[in-house]
Amino acid sequence: MKIVHTLSELIAARAELQGSVGLVPTMGALHNGHLSLLQQSTAQNDHTIVSIFVNPTQFLPGEDLDKYPRKPEADIKICELAGVDVLFMPRPEEMYATIEPTIHAPSSKAYILEGLARPGHFDGVLRVVLKLFNLTKPTRAYFGKKDAQQLYLIQNMITCLFLDITIVPCEIIREDDGLALSSRNAYLNPEERREALKLCESLKCATYLVMKGERDISVIQAAMLQALKPLHVEYAVILNRDFDTIPSLHVGHSIILVCAKVGTTRLIDNLWI
Amino acid sequence: MKIVHTLSELIAARAELQGSVGLVPTMGALHNGHLSLLQQSTAQNDHTIVSIFVNPTQFLPGEDLDKYPRKPEADIKICELAGVDVLFMPRPEEMYATIEPTIHAPSSKAYILEGLARPGHFDGVLRVVLKLFNLTKPTRAYFGKKDAQQLYLIQNMITCLFLDITIVPCEIIREDDGLALSSRNAYLNPEERREALKLCESLKCATYLVMKGERDISVIQAAMLQALKPLHVEYAVILNRDFDTIPSLHVGHSIILVCAKVGTTRLIDNLWI
Repeated sequence: MKIVHTLSELIAARAELQGSVGLVPTMGALHNGHLSLLQQSTAQNDHTIVSIFVNPTQFLPGEDLDKYPRKPEADIKICELAGVDVLFMPRPEEMYATIEPTIHAPSSKAYILEGLARPGHFDGVLRVVLKLFNLTKPTRAYFGKKDAQQLYLIQNMITCLFLDITIVPCEIIREDDGLALSSRNAYLNPEERREALKLCESLKCATYLVMKGERDISVIQAAMLQALKPLHVEYAVILNRDFDTIPSLHVGHSIILVCAKVGTTRLIDNLWI
Repeated sequence: MKIVHTLSELIAARAELQGSVGLVPTMGALHNGHLSLLQQSTAQNDHTIVSIFVNPTQFLPGEDLDKYPRKPEADIKICELAGVDVLFMPRPEEMYATIEPTIHAPSSKAYILEGLARPGHFDGVLRVVLKLFNLTKPTRAYFGKKDAQQLYLIQNMITCLFLDITIVPCEIIREDDGLALSSRNAYLNPEERREALKLCESLKCATYLVMKGERDISVIQAAMLQALKPLHVEYAVILNRDFDTIPSLHVGHSIILVCAKVGTTRLIDNLWI
């Protein structure tokens, strides 16, 4: 595995790769969720490039940019074992200049849910992802379904900017007890770790109702809010897969999204139903 | 020459081109300025793609989008004679969706000069140019130096988004009497056509002073404003080639830009000095 830190090293390493290339853009602190992305990429492509970059433009002032978990040595080992060809670990100065054009994610989809709590977050995400796409010219790029809104907005950018890249949405990976893997789970103390299970329990509860035939969103939502108590819930919504509100749940075309604060940690989870 | 109107036709036509590809993005109403871009592209590349698209997102409300000169038959003939391989003439619905990310040109460079009079203009320019780049995957793309600020912002976007495309700046083409070619010259009546010469005359006057050794920007500017009388001058400035203000003119690193209204028509001209 080639580890590169500069643009010119990356461009040179990319030029040597023949055939299909999978890109897995990450912020590091790799867990089994990331590992499943790596595995899909190495299985489906001749070569895999992974980027590890805690992207400053997607953090709002006062967010956890500085304390975001970083464990480069472990990350390198995981990538090596997964059969990654090129690992790109740039410094922010490498990725950003002073005078730059910016990308603005479409407001109606990027300033709701996660974007309501974190206005501008998705602008930063699209900006760095577009840069990474242009640098690595991947055949396919791998993103987890856990960040469902991010996935939608990246797919939308691919479509609107006519990028010739296939986005591969990857299933959410969970702990045995159901907690969706997240680098931010590292912030939870044992008590909070138990409380955090309420997010996936609220989704199970919604699934149960849907399996029983319930399609009324307000009924499902009420049950979810009950299951989430006493957490501070930011949202528990049911939308279609274009992130539009819908009159009632339509199986095969809907997504249930939940966000709640456990202690000071915002956690998200979702279910494509 | 293949004339294509839809994305899928363009993508199919592009896939058939082997070797280097030059892109000349235009809004049509082609004149000898455009022709010089076509000629440079066909000379330097195995294939040339031209786009003709009066891009709505770079026109402000109330601007001349609807009355912008259109002459598709003549344009097609010009491209054919110039040896263009693919001519892309999309409808706006082909280029834009309802829910889209947008590009914001860097404010400090895109909301001055042209961008002061036309706020948001360059956002629309970068947006369509980025789409065209992604669709046509050119080796080189050709832009006239007449739109100097546009040229700078496109080069900046190429650099910041890590696009693997060489921008070829092309010299301003002038009428025999010095008037810089522009599709908007078609708006001028004979009297205005004469008055319009004052733009290039003000640049000649500046050149004369610089040749005599003058480096004081305020002195050169005053002489330009004198030469431009009685036109309504929007700006007559001297900047470095990154569009920063400078204490004094530095030969080989400066650009003199002028914009004035002749009747109701805004005209621009410039000189790289």
